[in-house]
Amino acid sequence: MNATILDDLRAALPQLSLLTEAADLEHYGRDWTRRWTPAPLAIALPTTVEEIAAIVRWAREHKIALVPSGGRTGLSGGAVAANGELVLSLEKMRSTLEYDPVDRLLTVQAGMALETLRSIAAGHGLQYPVDFAARGSASIGGTVATNAGGIQVLRHGNTREWIAGLTVVDGRGEVLRLNRGLVKNSSGYDLRHLFVASEGTLGVIAEVTVRLADRDPPASTVLFALPSFAAIMPVFAALRDRLRLQSFEFFDACALKHVLHAGAHAPFDQPYPYYAIADVDADEAGLLEVFEACVNEGRVEDGLIAASDAQASALWRLREGITESLAPHTPYKNDVVVRTPRMPAFLAEAQSLLGAAYPDFEVAWFGHIGDGNLHINILKPAALSQADFVQACERATKLLSECLQRHGGSISAEHGIGLVKKPYLHQTRSDAEIAAMRGIKAVFDPDGIMNPGKVFD
Amino acid sequence: MNATILDDLRAALPQLSLLTEAADLEHYGRDWTRRWTPAPLAIALPTTVEEIAAIVRWAREHKIALVPSGGRTGLSGGAVAANGELVLSLEKMRSTLEYDPVDRLLTVQAGMALETLRSIAAGHGLQYPVDFAARGSASIGGTVATNAGGIQVLRHGNTREWIAGLTVVDGRGEVLRLNRGLVKNSSGYDLRHLFVASEGTLGVIAEVTVRLADRDPPASTVLFALPSFAAIMPVFAALRDRLRLQSFEFFDACALKHVLHAGAHAPFDQPYPYYAIADVDADEAGLLEVFEACVNEGRVEDGLIAASDAQASALWRLREGITESLAPHTPYKNDVVVRTPRMPAFLAEAQSLLGAAYPDFEVAWFGHIGDGNLHINILKPAALSQADFVQACERATKLLSECLQRHGGSISAEHGIGLVKKPYLHQTRSDAEIAAMRGIKAVFDPDGIMNPGKVFD
Ligand SMILES: Cc1cc2nc3c(=O)[nH]c(=O)nc-3n(C[C@H](O)[C@H](O)[C@H](O)COP(=O)(O)OP(=O)(O)OC[C@H]3O[C@@H](n4cnc5c(N)ncnc54)[C@H](O)[C@@H]3O)c2cc1C
Ligand SMILES: Cc1cc2nc3c(=O)[nH]c(=O)nc-3n(C[C@H](O)[C@H](O)[C@H](O)COP(=O)(O)OP(=O)(O)OC[C@H]3O[C@@H](n4cnc5c(N)ncnc54)[C@H](O)[C@@H]3O)c2cc1C
Repeated sequence: MNATILDDLRAALPQLSLLTEAADLEHYGRDWTRRWTPAPLAIALPTTVEEIAAIVRWAREHKIALVPSGGRTGLSGGAVAANGELVLSLEKMRSTLEYDPVDRLLTVQAGMALETLRSIAAGHGLQYPVDFAARGSASIGGTVATNAGGIQVLRHGNTREWIAGLTVVDGRGEVLRLNRGLVKNSSGYDLRHLFVASEGTLGVIAEVTVRLADRDPPASTVLFALPSFAAIMPVFAALRDRLRLQSFEFFDACALKHVLHAGAHAPFDQPYPYYAIADVDADEAGLLEVFEACVNEGRVEDGLIAASDAQASALWRLREGITESLAPHTPYKNDVVVRTPRMPAFLAEAQSLLGAAYPDFEVAWFGHIGDGNLHINILKPAALSQADFVQACERATKLLSECLQRHGGSISAEHGIGLVKKPYLHQTRSDAEIAAMRGIKAVFDPDGIMNPGKVFD
Repeated sequence: MNATILDDLRAALPQLSLLTEAADLEHYGRDWTRRWTPAPLAIALPTTVEEIAAIVRWAREHKIALVPSGGRTGLSGGAVAANGELVLSLEKMRSTLEYDPVDRLLTVQAGMALETLRSIAAGHGLQYPVDFAARGSASIGGTVATNAGGIQVLRHGNTREWIAGLTVVDGRGEVLRLNRGLVKNSSGYDLRHLFVASEGTLGVIAEVTVRLADRDPPASTVLFALPSFAAIMPVFAALRDRLRLQSFEFFDACALKHVLHAGAHAPFDQPYPYYAIADVDADEAGLLEVFEACVNEGRVEDGLIAASDAQASALWRLREGITESLAPHTPYKNDVVVRTPRMPAFLAEAQSLLGAAYPDFEVAWFGHIGDGNLHINILKPAALSQADFVQACERATKLLSECLQRHGGSISAEHGIGLVKKPYLHQTRSDAEIAAMRGIKAVFDPDGIMNPGKVFD
């Protein structure tokens, strides 16, 4: 039966690359979460918008679910195909389509890696100001579909802010050219912004037009050792109030331990409970004064200012290497956000809650705390089965999401809901909002073929 | 019958201020367009979110159409009530609700005037960087509902960019608290962005949380006299490439004539065909060099740099006074946008097209040309009836919208579609997009009571 259905697709698109080998099904059927067993029907690798539209039409006709797939670096299971879906990978759509130097708009196919797009921007003397450690593999389409954040949000905002146009194929099979790069366009509902953070549930993002920005001024990179969790937000405030910050990230001793274990060099002679790393405009005087003031107030124990680009990169590797160094422990990830004024109260509650919930588990805390965004990673003890581990974690996540709700936060800052956070969506979004979201999904995807089971059932 | 229906509303909300006098119906039934004869059922002036929700429930029950209404400075007929609708005016909802200095978020009721919000921001040493001449009357809710632009878009973007949260009552009567001020929130579809530019067709915007920004550095205001339309974009490019521009606007001799007639002072001893006004960061050297280079290239005939704040204001009044000075001529307004690289080709076509269409009408050209946004105002000859005039204008707008379509532009940059541009929506948005918009409208407004007949039928 499946073979006949695929034959239909082959007949409709003889040029289409279609993979069905077991190794391919496994490779393309999962993302970075590795919690679900991959079981897609096949992998399609279209090269044009028209091919994508034909695949969607075929999928509607045969009621086959589609999973749009980028670099599969996603951390929420959004690109997982575990139920006989066709994976629609953008891997072969990586070209530049247009560069407009006047409006500084770059249009690319959605499968292009973030890093490639960033170098193209640099080649034009500009920057694309979205960046994070998975840059080499994450696709532009994936960053749009999750509204990816990263280490430059503090100054430049999320992916959403940089999207000037999208070409999508929605679940009806319609090709929509949304906003077309216009700076201003008040002509009805902005469907472009619906596709940002839609996690493949409304359609396939085929082409993306991004705005480019002036490059940031050169930065000084600084690493602080902190005595306590409570010191982080005051140190952030001290830096932000007196200097022009480009980024501000934190991590704890547990996170550092794993990065060092994976080969990085220890920044200080002794360990400290917490660390903060920041980029500050280099022409700013006053960094040393802020540092000294923080030391005098007992909020900073030690510090380092990078003396060279190489040293700055080495310091950043301590932060950027965390996700990869934790991967062998198949961590259970929480990607939470609250408004920064609520952060101290939320932190205190969350820490005692998780301390009680996980007395025996290692927990790594890190993230984009300047944006109110914390990554809380629970590491699986080697002896525990994946199923038992996830079950234990879900119990605590339920409490955590209730705590977030009390503090007005969200269960996903930047990773998306996917499969991982689906049970907790109702704590971040009201029933009336979720009902509206379902209604919108039905408009663009009347047959429910677009990434079913992700975000909501 | 109407009386009974209103009695039901009075019974449900005894405190609600409800106006039914003829003068009020006329006053609240129209916006700045003055093309339609006001004929609302009544005017409701709620003071709380709960009252708005109760009004919507009443309207659903009785199938009464609602027209959300702010300052009624709208230029597209969006707030017109000409068919027995209940006007839901936000006029009594003008309070500040919360200020959060850490995240720099200001939450206000949606009826607050733009100017008030801007002064509150200034009082906190910050700015709300959306601004335009109607600031004293336009409501924050209205600016969100139209995604208003204005004179600061070049540096700071449209209203959309500054909206961190919205409390809306949708057409189902559901109160939705959208995004709640979070910097990052990747938890399903961003409904907030749907309500921006929704022109009252999805629900009532009751409360708005805006981000505030650092103030801009002091500016030098410069006015250039230009020999031709073709000179505008090169002068813009020369300024933008070498200086930090805060704004760049243009107007033609016809527009200036009307502003002078309304009492402003002529900037130069003789008239010129076109003018450009710009604010440039004051600490920038090089303004004089750019000016001289433009003169040498034959693109600038004369120029003025304001020597004082008072002179800067006087120069800006020449641009900002245009809309008001044209009002007595009940102008037919076009608010078009194309990407700036397409501007020269579009301009050439549009000018010859309109020259042929309106050999006998006065046409004023002005607008936010740095954003690709032109306002083309056709002035009604006193002798012509409003109906004949509009009919003549619509014929040309049909051609103009086809020309826009060829150049990838939009029929509304910042004023919205409302009633005025409804016939041309399909030239800016595809049939598949419009079908999706209708579907979305049905999700939030199943009974079609929210501003029916605006944007689409
Ligand atoms: C080491 C590491 C560090 C990371 N750091 C960050 C960080 O700092 N900030 C951050 O935000 N994320 C981070 N991530 C998460 C991840 O990289 C981002 O979510 C990224 O945007 C995913 O891109 P992708 O192409 O890999 O998407 P995938 O994993 O392939 O897909 C993610 C979701 O998007 C959908 N999708 C993908 N492509 C398309 C398309 N073309 N059309 C429609 N839907 C599509 C999928 O169906 C899925 O729901 C990190 C991941 C790793 C492994
Ligand atoms: C002199 C002058 C200069 C102008 N310059 C500019 C300019 O530079 N840039 C620009 O963008 N516009 C400009 N405008 C147009 C106008 O001021 C804007 O469109 C403004 O945003 C309208 O706000 P308002 O409160 O007057 O809205 P209204 O006219 O009352 O309503 C406009 C639309 O929004 C809806 N609406 C209003 N309030 C709400 C609410 N609370 N909830 C839901 N829907 C609502 C209405 O139903 C209607 O569809 C100008 C107007 C004038 C008169």
